[in-house]
Amino acid sequence: MEISEIGEFGLIDRLTKNLPKFNESTLKSVGDDAAVMSYPESDVLVTTDMLLEGVHFDLTYMPLKHLGYKSAVVNFSDIYAMGGTPRQITVGLGISARFSVEHIEALFAGIRLACEIYGVDLVGGDTTGSHSGLVISVTCIGDVAKGQAIGRDTARDTDLICVSGDLGAAYMGLQLLEREKVASAGDKNFVPRFEGKEYLVERQLKPEARRDIIEALRKHDIHPTSMIDISDGLSSELLHICKMSNTGCRVYEDRIPIDYQTAVMAEELNMNLVTAAMNGGEDYELLFTVPLHMHDTVSKIDGIKVIGHITKPELGCAMVTRDGTEIPLRAQGFNHMAPVEEIDPEGGKSAD
Amino acid sequence: MEISEIGEFGLIDRLTKNLPKFNESTLKSVGDDAAVMSYPESDVLVTTDMLLEGVHFDLTYMPLKHLGYKSAVVNFSDIYAMGGTPRQITVGLGISARFSVEHIEALFAGIRLACEIYGVDLVGGDTTGSHSGLVISVTCIGDVAKGQAIGRDTARDTDLICVSGDLGAAYMGLQLLEREKVASAGDKNFVPRFEGKEYLVERQLKPEARRDIIEALRKHDIHPTSMIDISDGLSSELLHICKMSNTGCRVYEDRIPIDYQTAVMAEELNMNLVTAAMNGGEDYELLFTVPLHMHDTVSKIDGIKVIGHITKPELGCAMVTRDGTEIPLRAQGFNHMAPVEEIDPEGGKSAD
Repeated sequence: MEISEIGEFGLIDRLTKNLPKFNESTLKSVGDDAAVMSYPESDVLVTTDMLLEGVHFDLTYMPLKHLGYKSAVVNFSDIYAMGGTPRQITVGLGISARFSVEHIEALFAGIRLACEIYGVDLVGGDTTGSHSGLVISVTCIGDVAKGQAIGRDTARDTDLICVSGDLGAAYMGLQLLEREKVASAGDKNFVPRFEGKEYLVERQLKPEARRDIIEALRKHDIHPTSMIDISDGLSSELLHICKMSNTGCRVYEDRIPIDYQTAVMAEELNMNLVTAAMNGGEDYELLFTVPLHMHDTVSKIDGIKVIGHITKPELGCAMVTRDGTEIPLRAQGFNHMAPVEEIDPEGGKSAD
Repeated sequence: MEISEIGEFGLIDRLTKNLPKFNESTLKSVGDDAAVMSYPESDVLVTTDMLLEGVHFDLTYMPLKHLGYKSAVVNFSDIYAMGGTPRQITVGLGISARFSVEHIEALFAGIRLACEIYGVDLVGGDTTGSHSGLVISVTCIGDVAKGQAIGRDTARDTDLICVSGDLGAAYMGLQLLEREKVASAGDKNFVPRFEGKEYLVERQLKPEARRDIIEALRKHDIHPTSMIDISDGLSSELLHICKMSNTGCRVYEDRIPIDYQTAVMAEELNMNLVTAAMNGGEDYELLFTVPLHMHDTVSKIDGIKVIGHITKPELGCAMVTRDGTEIPLRAQGFNHMAPVEEIDPEGGKSAD
């Protein structure tokens, strides 16, 4: 069905029908000039992310439902990275003429699924036509106990550096998807080869936010001294924490958590595995610091690994390799602001 | 200066340098995964608007500073339309390669000027490259006394319908700008003819949100029974209120406030003046209802006009013309979801 058949208001009605409500803080949802919320007992968090077609996603291999899911989850991840709980989102959509009502419903099905799984209320948004590709802008509101938001500027010398999950898989998933796209050469009947690499594809197409880690930290009464989510790569995020906290750091190469599939893929593509883990983006794992005396407590928690420690600022930021060499950290994360490549209308963008 | 010379983080640093703080509710601003706010005593409002190049604005005649100002102000207007006060905004930007650092600084100068004038804090955002035009997504957070947010679904039979300012000028300004753009035919030395029509141009390029009206209503202890801001045209907004409140309405043609310049322009373009006032968009005036007994109080306030009244639903929604004929209201507001025209790369888009 063409969107013009039902118009903007008709589309919004369809997308927001029977919205559930998970949070008491949501007083009034979609359908007015603004949503209304109540936060008398906690601090309020707000974060926003914009995803543009051709820059952040490629609809050749990104199903719309996954895209919707991911655009919500990456915002939830930012709220968890403050030690908070996501509660509400608003969704801004720019839709070009090639999208049908069913396409946008698939996108919203993903957004609504993410909201259901994470207990977040969809409370508002804006829907408009676009002359170019699909534009998605999600804003997430969350809460955190008063004064307990965890920033990036409060890491201290001797703190332990911890990371959740494993790193580099989402980046390797992107490489794999790009490789198969090139191999398909636009052939609709092409069957991509993902056997034994399902984890990589899933990490790229359907990332999760680490609510479980936040809950585990709360359960063990661990309040990190600083925290950030890994969207641009471990190096880049570590440098943010150290710059803002005015510290240095040491992380140990042999402690960086890497999945087996990530290693196999790096081998296949003849890429440096540690570079992928340190600089590949979109892991959405949590990077945080805890006081040194918490070593035993934090080490025991499933899915958390101690990978290094904070130092005095004059020592700089470095990774210590297996043979003891110190390599200064550099931010080589995704740079969406770099001059953009021309998009080949045939869809044959080469893998970087 | 090319944006790639300083990168995303360099650009953000420049744009967010020396941000003032106007509101106590702003605890932590730009520079973390999320901004932190505190709203213990009031309800929290959130609204979002997306503006896309070629759909919502045309940089041929819209200076970037004005565009920044407008993208902030249209969000403030939504918060005022709930009876609230805007407090914080986040700004998502998609920037294509043809924009320089200076361009984006001009855009931000407009956003920051609007924030300064309206006392709003810029607390976060997201900046990314775009393969197509400029994309702006602003989310505004505001507050309102507990339980006092003014919705659209609470107008009652016999309530008076009031409107602030005058209508149709922004739409006529758009027609004027489009006419001069066509007349210029891309000639850089062309001097557009705006004499005697400055008000129309200003209403289109630099709209204001009606904080003064909200303050006047508070001062006179008037709590509207419903309120909405006029972004899609008076007809469309009246229909929203009546549909959601399950009422009908009558508005009187001879009471619709119209500026002299708007009337002159309509005459010049041979357009129906009342249609422009009823259906032209982007006025950002406030439309609200008050109980009948408040007639004398509300009539005395500068800049507010009583234009009709709410009726029982079975009477439907209509405008009463000067000769007493009733014409049913129809929403003919801007439809950004209609199939989009092709953009002529020479810039010669015809006025609709």
